[in-house]
Amino acid sequence: MAARLVEARLSDNERFDWLRLIRSENVGPRTFRALIDRCGGAAAALAALPELARRGGASRPIRVAGVDDVARELDEARKFGVRFIAYCEPEYPPALRHIDAAPPLIALRGREEALQQPAVAIVGSRNASAAGLAFADRLARGLGQAGYVVVSGLARGIDQRAHVAALETGTIAVLAGGHAKPYPPEAAPLLPRIAENGAIVSEMPLQWEARGRDFPRRNRIVSGLALGAIVVEAARGSGSLITARLAAEQGREVLAAPGSPLDPRAEGTNDLLRDGATLCARVDDALAALEPLRTRASVGRMEEPRRTGGLWLDEPAETDEPAAAGPDEAGETAVGARVAALLGPAPVSIDELARVASADVGSVRAALVELELAGRIELSGGDRVALLTAEERD
Amino acid sequence: MAARLVEARLSDNERFDWLRLIRSENVGPRTFRALIDRCGGAAAALAALPELARRGGASRPIRVAGVDDVARELDEARKFGVRFIAYCEPEYPPALRHIDAAPPLIALRGREEALQQPAVAIVGSRNASAAGLAFADRLARGLGQAGYVVVSGLARGIDQRAHVAALETGTIAVLAGGHAKPYPPEAAPLLPRIAENGAIVSEMPLQWEARGRDFPRRNRIVSGLALGAIVVEAARGSGSLITARLAAEQGREVLAAPGSPLDPRAEGTNDLLRDGATLCARVDDALAALEPLRTRASVGRMEEPRRTGGLWLDEPAETDEPAAAGPDEAGETAVGARVAALLGPAPVSIDELARVASADVGSVRAALVELELAGRIELSGGDRVALLTAEERD
Repeated sequence: MAARLVEARLSDNERFDWLRLIRSENVGPRTFRALIDRCGGAAAALAALPELARRGGASRPIRVAGVDDVARELDEARKFGVRFIAYCEPEYPPALRHIDAAPPLIALRGREEALQQPAVAIVGSRNASAAGLAFADRLARGLGQAGYVVVSGLARGIDQRAHVAALETGTIAVLAGGHAKPYPPEAAPLLPRIAENGAIVSEMPLQWEARGRDFPRRNRIVSGLALGAIVVEAARGSGSLITARLAAEQGREVLAAPGSPLDPRAEGTNDLLRDGATLCARVDDALAALEPLRTRASVGRMEEPRRTGGLWLDEPAETDEPAAAGPDEAGETAVGARVAALLGPAPVSIDELARVASADVGSVRAALVELELAGRIELSGGDRVALLTAEERD
Repeated sequence: MAARLVEARLSDNERFDWLRLIRSENVGPRTFRALIDRCGGAAAALAALPELARRGGASRPIRVAGVDDVARELDEARKFGVRFIAYCEPEYPPALRHIDAAPPLIALRGREEALQQPAVAIVGSRNASAAGLAFADRLARGLGQAGYVVVSGLARGIDQRAHVAALETGTIAVLAGGHAKPYPPEAAPLLPRIAENGAIVSEMPLQWEARGRDFPRRNRIVSGLALGAIVVEAARGSGSLITARLAAEQGREVLAAPGSPLDPRAEGTNDLLRDGATLCARVDDALAALEPLRTRASVGRMEEPRRTGGLWLDEPAETDEPAAAGPDEAGETAVGARVAALLGPAPVSIDELARVASADVGSVRAALVELELAGRIELSGGDRVALLTAEERD
């Protein structure tokens, strides 16, 4: 059974535990959620981590984030004007809440209100043409004036131009690293200007330096914050196309600006159009695609928060139950061994895995959490899972 | 009941009569067909013209093309290497035969074989960009090599570039005027080169100088010859968009090359894409759209011609019946008066007209032929008809 969120505001202690849990080794957004579901809260999950990882076959003890490190990150965050908003809190961006692997916590600099506005992502090449930059500018201004906050990735070229054009109406920059290490470095002077009417968002530790793999991960937040993503210019294989793919997977509108068949910077956008993206050659094209979603989004806004202790479950959590030692512990370990033996490097669905393992899906999920904490598997989109090879584990 | 063609080869006398009938006043392709249906042949139709026009309410006698004028056109045509192919003959382009208001006769210079190949129209701005011209060149070469003959309108810019790129593999130029008055004049040196492996086609009198209204009329032949029309570059409101609209109305594939949102020369093509045209950014896009139609077209090729006297009807024509004096002549005149009174400048469908006039569709059609010969109405696509205003009649 999938957990469903009850909206709640975290206490300071709970927020500390949430941050500590998501900063612990092998805990990604999906495992975070599974742990809270299973253990009933972040504190209990933290207590259970070592035993769960051991049962998953970890070759050495799991590294739980240190209390001092977490306290230091919270302290530094305060100096940067950064605060943490949890998935279950009303300030969390409503569109982002609905994506697969939504970040449990986002670190926010700037205005919370920007996260509640309808948003549109405008992305494109770093190596943009003059026409592409001018069109990004026109789009960002027009959509800003129409009440949309413009989301992008702070990259050179189209991204920065979109941010700058929407400074007055509000723009959100999503960082691939932490707030203390914005990328690219020359965009740093832009950040306080963005924070004035908009926001800067990151899910990574404050001091995290962005690496290659962090950019596609970040892109899911760019598209996840928005009702739709507009790709202005993109060569084949460029990062903006990843944003477009993620937007489609998240059920968001994908729009692309057309370009000359002879311009390599338009190959990616023309490919998107060929594959069914909505053509965007003027502000009205974007509005026609987004306005119906905007209405729907506002209808779907969450109601007033209830205080329930920050749980993910509908059911009252049985917090007095020992976290990692249910009555069928031996049985679960047996399922874990069967599941581990069945997995390979090609991703399979959890349903299929349960069928082949002759186990119920709930037990398989529990076993997978342990295997993930042990660093042996990788959970991916569409409820699929794969064994990590030796190299990938490093 | 719509007439259905029986394939046949015309005798010299029949061809003369066909040419004389289509060159007569107020006889367009639709009326030509209705007259042949009604009278059983071109000779009988010519004999009936004056009486039919009088019954339609003509204010003066209809001008039937003179025997000398027709003889002179045939004679001059021979000197230009131009011959006339009739709708019912096997050399007539099969795709063109299926359009609304197909020309009863086309004047051909060049190779008949080019008219039997699968064809693609490539059209676009006269004021083309370097990239647009280069893309037209690439498309025409690629599609020519794939076995398509390239159809276009001989205009400066995209059209001429497409013709030149397809000179070796075969290209068809459709003239808006007659063969003796090609437009634009500077394209004249290109014509013998086109005729070598391809064809030049016109439905207009040999000495006809093209005027503004002749270009959209010509465009229906450009699209009608082809399985699909590719618009390479087009500003809003440009003639290439008329070709695209006609292609769509004829059930042909419409393709458009994308272009920068900031380039006015791409506004028309981007509009087409927005409206559902197939994106064409490479030769393969066109092939993917056209190849399935090509197979269908070749299956639909006509069989060996039968000699039946050049009739349009399935039924044996009752040629001994007096052409314009059936038993219900008085009744038809009454229908004609009712129909004329009901018509206004806004086009209405013939079915609707018959309903309001409380007459059967056959009688209404007969009355409309007379009204058209009298120069009082205009038949348009989709079986619609409108009264001509005083100014339009001049």
